[in-house]
Amino acid sequence: MHAYSTLAAVDLGSNSFHLQVARVEEKQLYLLDNLKEMVQLAAGLSEDQTLDEASQNRALACLERFGERLRGLPYHAVRVVGTNSLRVARNAAGFLQKAENALGFPIEIIAGYEEARLIFLGVAHSLPPSDDALLVVDIGGGSTELIIGSQLKSSKLESLPIGCISYSQYFFPDGKLTKDSLRYAELAARSEIQAATAEFSSSYWQKAYGSSGTARALAHILAINGYNDSDDAEIITLAGLEKLREFLLKTGDLRKLAIPGLNPSRRIIIAGGFAIMSAIFTELKIKRMEIASGALRQGVLYDMLGRFHKEDMREVSVQEFMQRYRVDLQQATRIESLAILLGKQLLADYPDQEKAENALKLLSWAARLHEIGISVAHTGYHKHSAYILDNADMPGFSRMEQSQLGQLVLSHHGSLAKTGDFLSHPINLARSVALRIATIFYRSRTQVDLPALMLSMSGRRCTLRIPQTWLERYPLTDTLLNNEIKTWAKVDVDLRIENLTEHHRTRSGAA
Amino acid sequence: MHAYSTLAAVDLGSNSFHLQVARVEEKQLYLLDNLKEMVQLAAGLSEDQTLDEASQNRALACLERFGERLRGLPYHAVRVVGTNSLRVARNAAGFLQKAENALGFPIEIIAGYEEARLIFLGVAHSLPPSDDALLVVDIGGGSTELIIGSQLKSSKLESLPIGCISYSQYFFPDGKLTKDSLRYAELAARSEIQAATAEFSSSYWQKAYGSSGTARALAHILAINGYNDSDDAEIITLAGLEKLREFLLKTGDLRKLAIPGLNPSRRIIIAGGFAIMSAIFTELKIKRMEIASGALRQGVLYDMLGRFHKEDMREVSVQEFMQRYRVDLQQATRIESLAILLGKQLLADYPDQEKAENALKLLSWAARLHEIGISVAHTGYHKHSAYILDNADMPGFSRMEQSQLGQLVLSHHGSLAKTGDFLSHPINLARSVALRIATIFYRSRTQVDLPALMLSMSGRRCTLRIPQTWLERYPLTDTLLNNEIKTWAKVDVDLRIENLTEHHRTRSGAA
Repeated sequence: MHAYSTLAAVDLGSNSFHLQVARVEEKQLYLLDNLKEMVQLAAGLSEDQTLDEASQNRALACLERFGERLRGLPYHAVRVVGTNSLRVARNAAGFLQKAENALGFPIEIIAGYEEARLIFLGVAHSLPPSDDALLVVDIGGGSTELIIGSQLKSSKLESLPIGCISYSQYFFPDGKLTKDSLRYAELAARSEIQAATAEFSSSYWQKAYGSSGTARALAHILAINGYNDSDDAEIITLAGLEKLREFLLKTGDLRKLAIPGLNPSRRIIIAGGFAIMSAIFTELKIKRMEIASGALRQGVLYDMLGRFHKEDMREVSVQEFMQRYRVDLQQATRIESLAILLGKQLLADYPDQEKAENALKLLSWAARLHEIGISVAHTGYHKHSAYILDNADMPGFSRMEQSQLGQLVLSHHGSLAKTGDFLSHPINLARSVALRIATIFYRSRTQVDLPALMLSMSGRRCTLRIPQTWLERYPLTDTLLNNEIKTWAKVDVDLRIENLTEHHRTRSGAA
Repeated sequence: MHAYSTLAAVDLGSNSFHLQVARVEEKQLYLLDNLKEMVQLAAGLSEDQTLDEASQNRALACLERFGERLRGLPYHAVRVVGTNSLRVARNAAGFLQKAENALGFPIEIIAGYEEARLIFLGVAHSLPPSDDALLVVDIGGGSTELIIGSQLKSSKLESLPIGCISYSQYFFPDGKLTKDSLRYAELAARSEIQAATAEFSSSYWQKAYGSSGTARALAHILAINGYNDSDDAEIITLAGLEKLREFLLKTGDLRKLAIPGLNPSRRIIIAGGFAIMSAIFTELKIKRMEIASGALRQGVLYDMLGRFHKEDMREVSVQEFMQRYRVDLQQATRIESLAILLGKQLLADYPDQEKAENALKLLSWAARLHEIGISVAHTGYHKHSAYILDNADMPGFSRMEQSQLGQLVLSHHGSLAKTGDFLSHPINLARSVALRIATIFYRSRTQVDLPALMLSMSGRRCTLRIPQTWLERYPLTDTLLNNEIKTWAKVDVDLRIENLTEHHRTRSGAA
């Protein structure tokens, strides 16, 4: 991958959208400008989890403005991530197309677990170096992330489906706040947190940090009103939260809430955020929390920087998964190298070579992971592999990348009937053909004296050229390749097996 | 479980149905009578995998005869297993109902992996004691099992979807056999076997045994015709198979095949069986195979005997899965003991107490396995647990038991919207309520000072009695129990939480 001198990250949060630009110099990031708009996507989520038109329009208008700032940046120098509201919205797919058009860059939905990892990366880079174990709490509009880590590495990650907007709407509709409704909100939050309480208890960390707008707003109110038993400006204490609770209960109507330090735009959502923060303080026995400046968008930037410098988290995840699911390493390596060789032949003339290069990266991961499902059962193992890839927490991967990996792995074996639209894209078709043919040559799970091979693709026709003399010595592979012709014919791909002659070889330099 | 003096096993194979009765004395089995009918279920499977009416009628008539023999045997002294044809038939469910009515006993479909384990158990018990590693090959009508094991324990299991009936029908339609069609059949079989070749190669075993009717028929023909270079009657040799091949090729029309020692009922299917056996000899480099008398039905009997004497293979599998998926043992143990206590309360008045006892066994397994899906991802872990339970090879479990485990685990957390019919059966409802409530009390994953609890069920109404004073001290559990009322209301179950008074306690002796 190329190294760029400017990187940009966009975070489509459930409360705010953020854009952060940074300059890269000597493998270091220098943060430049920073745009923020409080789009409140989560407020537009109806009960049946669809984004209403008003919130979509707010979002699209914001993305057009962000798009203007990003114009001219190279495709791979920008990464745009969407979080909880886009994870849960039923109509996210339709909205995403419009959003990508408005912004001019592709948008990735990331899982809560991946969001937590990136938040920690952003927060950890914003703090002075220390060996302390840190707890980071990020209360967003639709989800809350808890992370424990040390230095730049997170060790425990959790994402809970509780957010300041969703809680405010559910427990304080029309801004009405009573003693009971506040108590229920806190109990509900505690019951969500409780499953994670043991793992995040105070014995596992030395310092607690809050990284979201909610944490920052709460700290600001406590400081301005002198609610903390301390002069530190950027902290939240248990005592301070108790005093704020009294003030909130006295007010009763959030729409009229006027407390020094509170930005009116947060009036309604501050109570939901307060309930969640208070529940976290209670459950995790926190006494004091500092505010950290880093957040998701900075984490995305540092993660991109790592990808350019051979520290791609996705590589780490693939290695970790191969171990966890006891993949046969020799077999995986054999199939990977042949699949990549065939994939390169197929994509040699692909118009966008940067895209082709990325496509091969995913093919290499798929080749290394295609047998993880054997850990569940041998029968239908390719389906189990795909299930795991679709559902597992894979640090560094977006949901879409995991879904593509899953679909590619699903298509590598057996019938192609259930691959749906996946094979309509030439890149996916190429990857699937390459992976299937590679597994056929190594069906015996032993080293094979491979022949020269030439694989080419033109529309929905693929031609594999292979010396007829070799096939005669390997009748089983011959049989499997012939079956493959029938399998592909069922999804309207015309696979042909032709004799590879000296003529082809000298003309094209086959493998 | 009770120990019975007579046990019976019925094996609904793709080629033949078998019934085997045995007497139990001093924890030993003495095989008594044995019925066999060549029903040829696999021959009635159409291309779209439905069982035709003729084959269903053959099967039902046979099962009525078997039913007569079984009449009067206790419910738990009989185990009936179905194999490949019933695994793959799309209309198996409808047929099974009629079949159970005809037979008078429930029928379990077992997975190929479980079939292989039981075959080895049956074969190993029929052989003289030895420390040799054994290869067992069982060519059935619809699938072929390969097993390696030693003494009474199998160590490698494989089930391949190739059988003597399906191969004969596909490669030799109307009994026509040519040099090419025989070659294709052998290549096709070899390509299926090839994926297992490395694991079952001759370096892993000392002696090879064939256990099916196909193996017995082949050995008989070879012996009668003096095709083996040996006088041993019950063996198959590579040289013998080669001579039989020549004979088959000379004949050309299987319907007219007349070779000494061949039962005419096997005329058509012997060629498919021959092709598979020959492919196995080639791929696994077998030179000599002996015939073993044990088979699936004996394995089922020995497995039942084990269940009665506290060597239930299902217990072993549950333990193994808890380790493999790194289940939190303390949490699993806590939840299991509370779930069983609550389940006992709910099923105390259930009319069939033997069924209730079995129901609690499955509840205990579900409680110990409900968190295995965390190994995939924490988000939606109950769905991942259910996926693994539905799809994994779990020695000792039938497909139906795995499916019930999966559904129970799926219903233990979150919404009940997708539980379908599962909760309409009072036993399932009781197990689900017990497991859900048990997990609520241990949501904090720590030891809890439990109150006295009384759970009862009447139709679709469940009542949990619990001291109000306890709930006031545990407001989180209170909140979760109140949410539970709403969750159950959505599937028309009226869950009530009532105060447990001294009056109830003395009357019923609550937990």
